[in-house]
Amino acid sequence: MLKLFEYNWQVRKEWFDWCDSVDETELLKRRTGGPGSIFYTLFHIVECEYSWITALQGKPMPEEPPFEDYIGVQKIRDYSARCHAEIAPFIYAWDSSMETRILSDQNAAGEWESFRYGEIMRHVLAHEIHHFGQLSIWSREMGKQPVTANLIRRGLFDI
Amino acid sequence: MLKLFEYNWQVRKEWFDWCDSVDETELLKRRTGGPGSIFYTLFHIVECEYSWITALQGKPMPEEPPFEDYIGVQKIRDYSARCHAEIAPFIYAWDSSMETRILSDQNAAGEWESFRYGEIMRHVLAHEIHHFGQLSIWSREMGKQPVTANLIRRGLFDI
Repeated sequence: MLKLFEYNWQVRKEWFDWCDSVDETELLKRRTGGPGSIFYTLFHIVECEYSWITALQGKPMPEEPPFEDYIGVQKIRDYSARCHAEIAPFIYAWDSSMETRILSDQNAAGEWESFRYGEIMRHVLAHEIHHFGQLSIWSREMGKQPVTANLIRRGLFDI
Repeated sequence: MLKLFEYNWQVRKEWFDWCDSVDETELLKRRTGGPGSIFYTLFHIVECEYSWITALQGKPMPEEPPFEDYIGVQKIRDYSARCHAEIAPFIYAWDSSMETRILSDQNAAGEWESFRYGEIMRHVLAHEIHHFGQLSIWSREMGKQPVTANLIRRGLFDI
């Protein structure tokens, strides 16, 4: 599980760096599909991981902060770093005995739902990779090379 | 690991079903980004998983078959089912002792590279999810609702 989180964090960092070479107007432009703009997608990736893992840590699920406060590559980078510092210890301490623990959460319709911890961990992983795929299409539509999605050749595994 | 493969197989099936409601011209249309058309992307997802897992099974990595032979939803569905039957036993039999085994493979430039088995397994997982993200953008660009990427609420975990 941890290796896939490390992959996501590495790719996310590369998308932040990719943003440095793009005009902010392009990053804020409303695009078709996905959560909207490139900036909002990156903000949303961080926020989603942070809120679910916070809940798995037994704390109240945080409210989504106002996106307007996080416009700018460095602001999203800092937000990601702050969230990461809070949730990484949980992910590094993950072991298979936590798989079947249950999280109860109230959905948007106010109904209570129950999830296995292992289900939430994988949901968060797949969620971020899915959004990277969306960013890659927008990047090509802008005529720019996207961040590679390859998990191999990233130095994530000792060999 | 298995749960993420099961997620991919379920979402892949839903994309095949989604294709049933789309005109074949649209499915074959060359799009910006990703591997090209929607059909080719689905074919590529199947082929990538099949070739890497075949190699992990200790067999020679298969050559990519001609895409022209797999044009049509049912043909790609059948191809996916045939590949799945060959590779699923390996994935169901996966255990953590296999993580550090080494696969040596010759890349496109003819150089030999070594990968951990665990690295290839996660590469295959991330690869498919990434392409689903791309399909979701193209789907919205066509004015159609994409297959949901949510991993939760799919019945993958007993609760």
